Amino acid sequence: MQASGGADFLQLSPRSAPARGLTGWLADAIRGAIIDGRLRVGAPLPATRVLADDLGVSRGVIVEAYQRLTQEGLVGGRPGAGTRVLRPPRVSAHAEVSEAAEVSVDDAEPGEAGSPTASPGPVRAGGMPGPGELPQRWRSQAELDLSPGVPDLSGFPRGAWLRAERMALDRASTADLGYGDPRGSELLRRELAGWLARARGLRADPDDIIVVTGVAQALALLGQWLKANTDGRIAMEDPGSRGSRDQLAYWGLRPVPIPVDDEGLRVADLAGSGLPAVMLTPAHQFPTGVALAPVRRRRLLDWAADTDALVIEDDYDAEYRYDRAPVPALQASAPSQVAYTGSTSKTLAPGLRLGWLVPPRRLHADLVAAKRAADLGSPALPQLVLAQLIASGELERHIRLVRKRQRTRRDALFGALREHLPEARVRGVAAGLHLLVTFGEGDIAIDDAELADRIHRAGVLVHPLSWHRQRPGAPGLVLGYAVHTPDQLREAARRIASVTRAARPAAGVGTGGRLG
Amino acid sequence: MQASGGADFLQLSPRSAPARGLTGWLADAIRGAIIDGRLRVGAPLPATRVLADDLGVSRGVIVEAYQRLTQEGLVGGRPGAGTRVLRPPRVSAHAEVSEAAEVSVDDAEPGEAGSPTASPGPVRAGGMPGPGELPQRWRSQAELDLSPGVPDLSGFPRGAWLRAERMALDRASTADLGYGDPRGSELLRRELAGWLARARGLRADPDDIIVVTGVAQALALLGQWLKANTDGRIAMEDPGSRGSRDQLAYWGLRPVPIPVDDEGLRVADLAGSGLPAVMLTPAHQFPTGVALAPVRRRRLLDWAADTDALVIEDDYDAEYRYDRAPVPALQASAPSQVAYTGSTSKTLAPGLRLGWLVPPRRLHADLVAAKRAADLGSPALPQLVLAQLIASGELERHIRLVRKRQRTRRDALFGALREHLPEARVRGVAAGLHLLVTFGEGDIAIDDAELADRIHRAGVLVHPLSWHRQRPGAPGLVLGYAVHTPDQLREAARRIASVTRAARPAAGVGTGGRLG
Repeated sequence: MQASGGADFLQLSPRSAPARGLTGWLADAIRGAIIDGRLRVGAPLPATRVLADDLGVSRGVIVEAYQRLTQEGLVGGRPGAGTRVLRPPRVSAHAEVSEAAEVSVDDAEPGEAGSPTASPGPVRAGGMPGPGELPQRWRSQAELDLSPGVPDLSGFPRGAWLRAERMALDRASTADLGYGDPRGSELLRRELAGWLARARGLRADPDDIIVVTGVAQALALLGQWLKANTDGRIAMEDPGSRGSRDQLAYWGLRPVPIPVDDEGLRVADLAGSGLPAVMLTPAHQFPTGVALAPVRRRRLLDWAADTDALVIEDDYDAEYRYDRAPVPALQASAPSQVAYTGSTSKTLAPGLRLGWLVPPRRLHADLVAAKRAADLGSPALPQLVLAQLIASGELERHIRLVRKRQRTRRDALFGALREHLPEARVRGVAAGLHLLVTFGEGDIAIDDAELADRIHRAGVLVHPLSWHRQRPGAPGLVLGYAVHTPDQLREAARRIASVTRAARPAAGVGTGGRLG
Repeated sequence: MQASGGADFLQLSPRSAPARGLTGWLADAIRGAIIDGRLRVGAPLPATRVLADDLGVSRGVIVEAYQRLTQEGLVGGRPGAGTRVLRPPRVSAHAEVSEAAEVSVDDAEPGEAGSPTASPGPVRAGGMPGPGELPQRWRSQAELDLSPGVPDLSGFPRGAWLRAERMALDRASTADLGYGDPRGSELLRRELAGWLARARGLRADPDDIIVVTGVAQALALLGQWLKANTDGRIAMEDPGSRGSRDQLAYWGLRPVPIPVDDEGLRVADLAGSGLPAVMLTPAHQFPTGVALAPVRRRRLLDWAADTDALVIEDDYDAEYRYDRAPVPALQASAPSQVAYTGSTSKTLAPGLRLGWLVPPRRLHADLVAAKRAADLGSPALPQLVLAQLIASGELERHIRLVRKRQRTRRDALFGALREHLPEARVRGVAAGLHLLVTFGEGDIAIDDAELADRIHRAGVLVHPLSWHRQRPGAPGLVLGYAVHTPDQLREAARRIASVTRAARPAAGVGTGGRLG
């Protein structure tokens, strides 16, 4: 077997090199790669020793080629930092490369096409952000961003996470790092089964749980199942999460809006509908914040049992509960009708993309097959870290800490709204990370999108309630309070109140009491 | 606003508690949860102080309830470790709970259903493991497991990973932890663009890259696109990765087998086929190990350009190249026809589920929409860690180290096969993590599945080539060498040779030269 097969770097092979003039050949190859963009500004060249070894040539050849390119100003090096590409050569046939190319890696190639036209922006939708996006005019940054659905990421427990990761790496077997069970790490599923039983009343064995890449993936898997096994219609809360709606629609389902009132989803509307499925947020409805009333819970589960319908329970922010009695998950009462899903997006960070799906057993095998076909299973290390955080009690400590902080923020925003906009009705205060502001009878004609637009011009980003509706309804504003300090929230409330009052001079400003 | 809304723990609410007898009420609630399985053996009870605070009752109530349960033998505690559930109570109406329940969390609930019937086993398929599974008789553990497709996980760079994670957590912005770009972290896409350009010749801007949860997800996204935009047929290598084939079939595609010979895929067979797509492993064909011959590379890309077909390039183990010249990715020659995909599964660990997809630009927006609908984007932290490992040069150092180790293993297995089974032909030695053993003309009738079965009984797990075929063809054995030491591999070769020779007494044993 011969010793050297060439270098991965630029796929250089000594076999394609000339017998003489190796230095020139190498310098040409590197120069060519800089010109055609394979080597960009800042790209490292291999260490001379390493490349000489790969190519089976003397180190002097490499050193000389690098020197030649250095003299041309194309590459340069600092001791210890290696040799890197400094700038593209000036090629007369191409457009002159501006000086800006020297400092910005992003803009290094004005001649090549930049971003594809359909460059997607970041996703910032409702309680369960999904494919839906805010209209363009709200996407620009606001001074105070009260978009709902975003937790306080400044509180992410970086130290605890790193400690847990060290422990997880210490303990991980090679099997843990291999192609694993598509349902997810057994260790995590065991911890989750205990955690969900204690905190949410869930009835699930570790083997019932499928670890997913966030609630979004749970909906993708369930959407595929429903599309293949039902007529594709699904009842959804109206108003409700636009992200969830858009996502299920992507998978071929047809969302059917069911109104939400002060007791949650109007379950009576499901009777006789023949709908094969319903998706809802019973613990804290998005965006109205109401909890599904006990009598409706019972009727919903009766309806599902009678018609063999599937209930998708999105428990997206159940961990944030301030001054109302805890309610177990729907799944606890009807594990054979309810597919339960939740995630760490609101307790730790959405960027973890780590959630769970607990489906009825009759769906389990199909959903595992779908998960396997989607990605063979979720990444292992974050699962092991989360298992460690649950087992050590760190997750629970973190949630208690954040909940306390969020309660203070909620109090600040709620108090300021009562002070500055007393005629508005504020709902959803007992739990979650957002409030819903609605207006009195006289304000039924308010265009909340227009109002949100004006508030945005005052530096505060809020969601108009209409943006989360499928059918027209009363106007409102959805205000997330998770990411701002009490002072910032009070300032936001002042501006919202001031813009809202200016926007409706006809209405009874200063009438005092709640009108809603 | 009232102070206490109750406890998440068992959803206990002081509002549902009696005015008197709080201790009994609490003990009953906890006992009930232990009986119905919400609290399992080993589950922690909240600290008395915390639960007293949640419920707005005196701590003495909690302490007394815990003491009552301790006396019943249901819970117990050690100082510092908190109070935990010890065993389920003996309930006469139910089946007696065996003593085994005390020691095993898994078996704690004999009355409840255990695993679902369709409990999926771990996935261990070919070069790109997918939904396909080995037949049951090969799934049991063998003393020496030479399944291809599994890298050496004992070499996972745990220290480097943890260091990079610390740095990533230090530097991560709150935006990095939020709902991100469905294409993946910009930092990682920038590092990948440079890395893939240098090491594989790829022509891609950071914005062209979609970070995916392994090559499996890349195929899922491409499969959806092809199903929606073509007649659904796709040419695939035969023999080829069974996992990839099964996976694309899941997404509704119809794989069309195209034979592979010593120069790779028989590209001529594509002419006039009208096939809208082809998937192949050009750098190191799975499982034969051949590289696509230069003239075939050219013809394949010509065919794709002429017929506007999509070429899916699975670059699954390009990092392992020992004694042959490096070949740039196909994508480097035809970025508008080729969808390139690769992952860290063979260089770091499959459990990371971290890969990339570089599609032609005309597919880009659709694939990003599909990625978003699948999971909103891949987990952020592992992406930031990988970006750090590339930027610091740690990934390259790791690959060089592992490649050296794998070369030694390859040499050991190859040498032992030449010594003990000289009449066999061994292919695919110049690269990758596996070899293909085929036999002489006289052995064309060997049943390789039967042979692999006998070898398995001798304690060595290998894949029969027929298992990776769509159509019948010459027999062979696929041997992965990544996870064993040279000594183990020599022992495996001895056993394979011994079983193989015993299995075919009629053939010319000891004829010496290569027959294939």
